[in-house]
Amino acid sequence: MRTLDCVSSHKVLVGSVDVARWDQYDLDGVMPFQAMWYSVPAGQSSSPDCHPEAELSVVLTGTAWVETADGIAAVHAGSAFLIDGDEPHTVHNRSGQSLLVFSAYWLPAALAPTTQARSA
Amino acid sequence: MRTLDCVSSHKVLVGSVDVARWDQYDLDGVMPFQAMWYSVPAGQSSSPDCHPEAELSVVLTGTAWVETADGIAAVHAGSAFLIDGDEPHTVHNRSGQSLLVFSAYWLPAALAPTTQARSA
Repeated sequence: MRTLDCVSSHKVLVGSVDVARWDQYDLDGVMPFQAMWYSVPAGQSSSPDCHPEAELSVVLTGTAWVETADGIAAVHAGSAFLIDGDEPHTVHNRSGQSLLVFSAYWLPAALAPTTQARSA
Repeated sequence: MRTLDCVSSHKVLVGSVDVARWDQYDLDGVMPFQAMWYSVPAGQSSSPDCHPEAELSVVLTGTAWVETADGIAAVHAGSAFLIDGDEPHTVHNRSGQSLLVFSAYWLPAALAPTTQARSA
């Protein structure tokens, strides 16, 4: 069993967002996804983002106001949101407390390796 | 973007633990892992568990005292613990508040489809 401690993790500031990517841990080949924690200060937002990876985010503290082409959805602590690959998104923290999020992300193509092998 | 709401999720009582498995959502082929929330009441424990799936758990509220063959480790809200496949484990809640956990789990064999295809 391994523990991954959020408080002591190495963080990098990206805009106003503190990001702790899990590639700082020795987990290659252990999990079928990459992961990170990130925190958005009160009243701040992430930079608008769009990437080929799909991303599942679980809100740990605070509330995420998640903006996509569908509009803005409030996701409270304990709940989660799932962004498709190549789906533009921005995470706003409209509250007076810090927003902490755990995210797992992966290339959707990696979900179909068997199909790829069969067609090769 | 999809939101997955913990509060309104369908839960099943397993021993003293409330479990909300994500197979209640239409996510087949979307994520490279299965997922669930579970909550352990104050002073209670999960049943001793062991399964072929590896499991990454993120503590959402409270503290998990995770017992494995290595001993017992306290994992606080925001942090995570990673259980290997076939590793016996029990989660204790020794506090006076509820323990809420998000878990992702997957078959480790699913991480090596390319290697399997090459050797076939």
